[in-house]
Amino acid sequence: MGPGGPANLSQRDTGDKLGLDKDTARVELDALNARLAMLQSRLYAERRRSVLLVLQGLDSSGKDGTIKRVLTGVNPMGCHVTSFRAPTETELDHDYLWRIHEAMPARGQIGCFNRSHYEDLVTTVVLGLIGDAERKHRYEQVRHFERTLHDEGTTIVKVFLNLGKDEQRERLQARLDDPEKRWKFNRGDLETRKRWGEYMHLYDQAISHTSTDWAPWYVVPADHKWVSAVAVATLLVDALETMDPQIPPPADDLDGLEVV
Amino acid sequence: MGPGGPANLSQRDTGDKLGLDKDTARVELDALNARLAMLQSRLYAERRRSVLLVLQGLDSSGKDGTIKRVLTGVNPMGCHVTSFRAPTETELDHDYLWRIHEAMPARGQIGCFNRSHYEDLVTTVVLGLIGDAERKHRYEQVRHFERTLHDEGTTIVKVFLNLGKDEQRERLQARLDDPEKRWKFNRGDLETRKRWGEYMHLYDQAISHTSTDWAPWYVVPADHKWVSAVAVATLLVDALETMDPQIPPPADDLDGLEVV
Repeated sequence: MGPGGPANLSQRDTGDKLGLDKDTARVELDALNARLAMLQSRLYAERRRSVLLVLQGLDSSGKDGTIKRVLTGVNPMGCHVTSFRAPTETELDHDYLWRIHEAMPARGQIGCFNRSHYEDLVTTVVLGLIGDAERKHRYEQVRHFERTLHDEGTTIVKVFLNLGKDEQRERLQARLDDPEKRWKFNRGDLETRKRWGEYMHLYDQAISHTSTDWAPWYVVPADHKWVSAVAVATLLVDALETMDPQIPPPADDLDGLEVV
Repeated sequence: MGPGGPANLSQRDTGDKLGLDKDTARVELDALNARLAMLQSRLYAERRRSVLLVLQGLDSSGKDGTIKRVLTGVNPMGCHVTSFRAPTETELDHDYLWRIHEAMPARGQIGCFNRSHYEDLVTTVVLGLIGDAERKHRYEQVRHFERTLHDEGTTIVKVFLNLGKDEQRERLQARLDDPEKRWKFNRGDLETRKRWGEYMHLYDQAISHTSTDWAPWYVVPADHKWVSAVAVATLLVDALETMDPQIPPPADDLDGLEVV
């Protein structure tokens, strides 16, 4: 989708393979991982700008797995993942962007938000914590907030992992049936699933209203984990290649200096 | 060295290869990286305890490179590196352990400190910011601080990368001579090098006084980068294997539940 366009989540094919098959996807992901590691080391050396990857998606849409597939292989010295959970009492004593701002990547770093302030535009609405006027006001606040981050040197890439409802059922059932996976199962996920339509509508709205030139949203088909991984890695590599980070130029006044 | 023993830094062979050659070291490091990734995913799933790797060493002793070699391949979602620089004004408005405590890894995480509170037991002394009585008092404070961290669930592994003075000259000279590396060169490193003896003496003292059963120091020979990497990876893997993190047991009351 182009920035500013409608998300139309429900009309998208969540099973889209983007022309890939599993074998070529693996090869492609390896190449993207290597490219990402190289670009990140340059971003770190340059230490002037940063990248933020925002990952949103319903339960079991593969946020954790995507992070693992895309970012493992990047030097953790220059990469920081923040997983946002339900806000703490202290966080609730501040505005909803307070904890988000605090977690922003430093210059030279790739930051990744596993969930984000977009929970405050969607989940809080479902839970009845904010009303319609507040929700719409937040779209505007978020656009302005992200604009500032962008202007101050952060390239923002926002990804919605678009999972099909049938595929979610299979994944949640697999978590229940496999003793090795059951620790990941959360009873609350079933409640959330019951309100599927509501969540999807609110994501559609939030994405449509906050996809901007300076912080575009990308809707990634998520029924196949290997497709999501290649798509997200490609978006991240493209963002870094556009930034084209440079090793700082050597200082001239060091010529001929000898270490004793 | 055993906990509680003297460090004797200057009597150690910084060129020790620990019985390795470069080829076997590469194979061994690959195996250690894979083992580390597996153990870390269990630590993350367990979410009860954490690991802290503290890396200290003089300029060009290979702290950054060791982090890259040892931790690349670990899922960044469960691994957080903090690089400590000269304290900010705000940090100086607090006690020296304030920023350290704040950066501690959360449960389920591997934390790595690239420099640490040990700068406050060594560098601050060289700079004349604290005196002898204060320095000795800090040894005790740090022992108590680390004891609390340990008792509350953090396994602490402290590593001093022990570099030879000749090897440091070669590395600093290489940074000057290679245009690709020159951005890493810092004029201040030459001043620090002039006070080599003072730094080594203070590290010797700090290490000897803070190597405890609950937070032992390991002196790793650092003239060969591939030796340091294998040594540090081994220490980290051993620490995690001793902890033996477990996937949480599945809840019984989920039997037979069907997702609709």
